[in-house]
Amino acid sequence: MSRPGAKVPPEAPSRRRHDLPSVLEVAAAVFTERGYDGTSMEDLSRATGLSKSSLYHHIDSKEQLLRLALERAVDPLFGVLDEPGANQGPAIDRLSHVVRREVEVLADQLPYVTLLLRVHGNTGTERWALERRREFDRRVAEIVVAAVAEGYLRDDVDPFLVTRLLFGMINSFVGWYRPDSASRRGRHGSRSLPPNELADALLRVVFDGLRKRS
Amino acid sequence: MSRPGAKVPPEAPSRRRHDLPSVLEVAAAVFTERGYDGTSMEDLSRATGLSKSSLYHHIDSKEQLLRLALERAVDPLFGVLDEPGANQGPAIDRLSHVVRREVEVLADQLPYVTLLLRVHGNTGTERWALERRREFDRRVAEIVVAAVAEGYLRDDVDPFLVTRLLFGMINSFVGWYRPDSASRRGRHGSRSLPPNELADALLRVVFDGLRKRS
Repeated sequence: MSRPGAKVPPEAPSRRRHDLPSVLEVAAAVFTERGYDGTSMEDLSRATGLSKSSLYHHIDSKEQLLRLALERAVDPLFGVLDEPGANQGPAIDRLSHVVRREVEVLADQLPYVTLLLRVHGNTGTERWALERRREFDRRVAEIVVAAVAEGYLRDDVDPFLVTRLLFGMINSFVGWYRPDSASRRGRHGSRSLPPNELADALLRVVFDGLRKRS
Repeated sequence: MSRPGAKVPPEAPSRRRHDLPSVLEVAAAVFTERGYDGTSMEDLSRATGLSKSSLYHHIDSKEQLLRLALERAVDPLFGVLDEPGANQGPAIDRLSHVVRREVEVLADQLPYVTLLLRVHGNTGTERWALERRREFDRRVAEIVVAAVAEGYLRDDVDPFLVTRLLFGMINSFVGWYRPDSASRRGRHGSRSLPPNELADALLRVVFDGLRKRS
């Protein structure tokens, strides 16, 4: 997706913490915490340690910052839908591929996916993000519909409800999953599972259910 | 749970829209939308149509309003755990009971459960709510552990992860479920399913999985 007007500065080691990616990461966390409406450029200046004029060196407006942060989630999420694994073979394999890769994108882009899931819809950019989420859900629901039609998935639950349940599970990871936290064992071990193991567990539960088979 | 200092006014028909329950419902929506920190008594006065002094007739502070709103979710959620169905019989039946009743509580107390799931933890009341959520998760996880030990549930996924996946699914309902919306058919039909049908679908998916059995 295009990023109109983004002024990406040449990377200079002495300003590494203040390059656009770092600013986006801080901004995403602040927007998530305070809400987009509740965040002023003053707040962003304080959180990044950059003056407002330095911030405006990177971006044209607060809304552009939101757009760039959201694209860091939206672009790779849609990228998954264009991968061969999402487009070739039986629908159940395509669905598994999409679920597995979405979990990876979520782990990779955690602050941005978290922000995407918190967006309300008061500005054009927020409404764009909500529309992208709906379009994403529609495209995944199409794969679910195909998997039902091909006889792989149960047909007694509405495919759109299935999609919602599935993404409800996946999206809830943003509330507790910390892929880079120090590995800890015991009851909180799942917080730091590698994304592929987390995806394995989710796929087992979702496709085969919790009930033990004899 | 006690509600120290709550001044519940006698109900008078002419002020029905301005009684404490109505104030709580509006406050929960505003806290959810703007965040607790981002909401002033001024905002609440505007949203409820009550002067600040009228608001202070109902409550002592903004934080007390938050507490009362959160109790409307926390009290019935914990109430479910004390029901006979959550305490008698095989663990898998107890788990089904808890899931089914939680879906009902969520549908009944939607604005308050939504708020509970959005709470951060900057004030004593928010930290109390987070601790209640953790305690709730622990108690459900105990039932999952028992259901695994009794041989009903698969033992190759960590019970605490199972609990998180399960509640990830249930809690995601707050993002789209509108139990009182006009019944609509077609792709958005699941928005307005009665809570018991929604719980049925969720239990089918969670216990038996999406894969079609021959």
